[in-house]
Amino acid sequence: MKTQVAIIGAGPAGLLLSHLLHLRGVESVVIETRSRADIEATIRAGVLEQGTMDILSEAGVGERMRAEGALHHGFELAFGGQRHRVDLHGLTGKSITVYPQHEVIKDLVAARLAAGGDLRFEVGAVSLKDIDTGKPGVSFTQGGERYAIEADFVVGCDGFHGVTRPSMPGEGRQDFQRVYPFGWFGILVESAPSSEELIYARHERGFALVSTRSPTVQRLYFQCDPADHVDNWSDDRIWNELHLRLENNDGWKVNEGKIFQKGIIGMRSFVSTPMQHGRLFLAGDAAHIVPPTGAKGMNLAISDVRILSEGLDSFYRTGGEALLNGYTETALKRVWRAEYFSWWMTSMLHTFQDASAFERQVQRAELDNVVASRAMMTALAENYVGAF
Amino acid sequence: MKTQVAIIGAGPAGLLLSHLLHLRGVESVVIETRSRADIEATIRAGVLEQGTMDILSEAGVGERMRAEGALHHGFELAFGGQRHRVDLHGLTGKSITVYPQHEVIKDLVAARLAAGGDLRFEVGAVSLKDIDTGKPGVSFTQGGERYAIEADFVVGCDGFHGVTRPSMPGEGRQDFQRVYPFGWFGILVESAPSSEELIYARHERGFALVSTRSPTVQRLYFQCDPADHVDNWSDDRIWNELHLRLENNDGWKVNEGKIFQKGIIGMRSFVSTPMQHGRLFLAGDAAHIVPPTGAKGMNLAISDVRILSEGLDSFYRTGGEALLNGYTETALKRVWRAEYFSWWMTSMLHTFQDASAFERQVQRAELDNVVASRAMMTALAENYVGAF
Repeated sequence: MKTQVAIIGAGPAGLLLSHLLHLRGVESVVIETRSRADIEATIRAGVLEQGTMDILSEAGVGERMRAEGALHHGFELAFGGQRHRVDLHGLTGKSITVYPQHEVIKDLVAARLAAGGDLRFEVGAVSLKDIDTGKPGVSFTQGGERYAIEADFVVGCDGFHGVTRPSMPGEGRQDFQRVYPFGWFGILVESAPSSEELIYARHERGFALVSTRSPTVQRLYFQCDPADHVDNWSDDRIWNELHLRLENNDGWKVNEGKIFQKGIIGMRSFVSTPMQHGRLFLAGDAAHIVPPTGAKGMNLAISDVRILSEGLDSFYRTGGEALLNGYTETALKRVWRAEYFSWWMTSMLHTFQDASAFERQVQRAELDNVVASRAMMTALAENYVGAF
Repeated sequence: MKTQVAIIGAGPAGLLLSHLLHLRGVESVVIETRSRADIEATIRAGVLEQGTMDILSEAGVGERMRAEGALHHGFELAFGGQRHRVDLHGLTGKSITVYPQHEVIKDLVAARLAAGGDLRFEVGAVSLKDIDTGKPGVSFTQGGERYAIEADFVVGCDGFHGVTRPSMPGEGRQDFQRVYPFGWFGILVESAPSSEELIYARHERGFALVSTRSPTVQRLYFQCDPADHVDNWSDDRIWNELHLRLENNDGWKVNEGKIFQKGIIGMRSFVSTPMQHGRLFLAGDAAHIVPPTGAKGMNLAISDVRILSEGLDSFYRTGGEALLNGYTETALKRVWRAEYFSWWMTSMLHTFQDASAFERQVQRAELDNVVASRAMMTALAENYVGAF
């Protein structure tokens, strides 16, 4: 089959790119190895910057997000036995929306299908071909049949473990990476929210995060050994750990409830450059990973495909490739700012087992400085809401 | 001999403490191992915060500082081939004064001698005695004679390598330290200033700093191996290195001139707690060291002795020891903020040989964020001028 843009991966990046191209009259095909039910049920990130909301709204896929997402005007930093509010809206004029990534995916899948878009789930054996030519292609299998897409462009939105990035020539590529010596143990809990706003807590036992998915489901995280196993953590042990890390003697408590999902995620910072090889592009997690502490992952993916869609639109309208060829440079400015912020938040809030006594004190002094200085708190808030 | 407060060390901390006590009618004796000529000629730090200037002015020792010191309303951050001004005064309403530490020492020595203060230079064999009693003492030799001071309090202002800190009981003490894997190569140059304001430059070859001592003497520094020797650096090699690290193609050049002093200083962060043991106190470098990047060393010393002088004043007026016993806690708040800031500036501006490619990019992204965000620039400026 032929199309203008072949998109590998039906996450937020791939689906939104397909939708943005459709709005500009550009055809695409999206292939995805997982099933629709699977991608629509996998719980991932959930913090949308104002700019991300604006892109989704302008693309006509923001209705349910606006109705069901929870607008947050601030969050709390907890350390040293005290909670300090970061007044995002008061400091920056902007807010964030908590709306889970799989809900964004549902909205995008629905929009693509309503528009007759070509989405192919449960494909296998994906491989790229002719990537050094003006007609790159993708081959894959589906239902036992082999298919090939011939396209003008191929875009890899297939995540960190996808096939696209490893298919790019190694020469001239540079990867930047930090793997953190801890992970996040995440649970989903049937209970009312413990807090209206997110709580980012630094504690000697390790970081913890109080978040919410809905009025009846909480999402809680705590720093753990990335090599640990969920089987080592009984519900009692989990609750005990969360109470220790999150509660003081001020009466506030974490709401307990039935834990219906447990998982451990690793923490990594990663950037692969360039994000283009001829007519092959990378977007989202395929090109870069941030640790979740800064809540930037989905926002970066959506920013990437907005930039890329403008380049592709320009190409199809004018034949000019300047915007496309500037994609890496344009996207990386925002990527590195988010990498810096995510590294900063991660470094400031987690317990590093190998940190010296000096480093632990400086980490605490940095947090003290954040909450004592309106300027520093504003700088943190600007980065969190994605103010620039 | 007897006095109320025995002070070990005639640096800015010891001399100012003696002077502040004198102004409140409290007697002291200051002993110093070096000669007056030596301490009045040794070139050290030179950046005074507004609060430090205020303390010196209020104590009546600020006249020459105000007349001869250079008021700086900003400095420059240079990286990536560009210079960015940090408008200290515009961002914080405050400025700093460049006035060398040995000039502060001259002013303080003159004030103490004019008031008939007991300053003893070139003493030897300093040791503490009876530090667990209400009458601690100090013994020392001078001109072949042995002397003993019996005092109500002993204050160690004798720097990182002084005798006081090691004389305190080890039990209950905690030291916090980071030794950086680089030093600063500093030179004094007979030439007009290259820049009206200080320039802090990050370069792949290493950090460099352009400063000035007078209209005819420049003070220039560049990051080096702390184990290097000045003999390895010919004047030509030094100038070559400075040109490489500091100049772009914008026409600005480092003024060359006769290099009349060369030296290498190590870089260390250090805090020793508590700063009190009974009637024995530590102030300034005896208790804590900051790397010079944040320009905080002398300011912290002066802040320490202001706090301590108030505690001693309170004791002699009321007999109460609450302020004295709160000295460590009060002083450490400011110390840890300065330690954080000095660590931050040092981490952000120096080349770390063992940094990963990711860490180098994040360091650059952090600097990009500082100059792109008025809030972050303000937070940096606040810390630099000591706004709180």
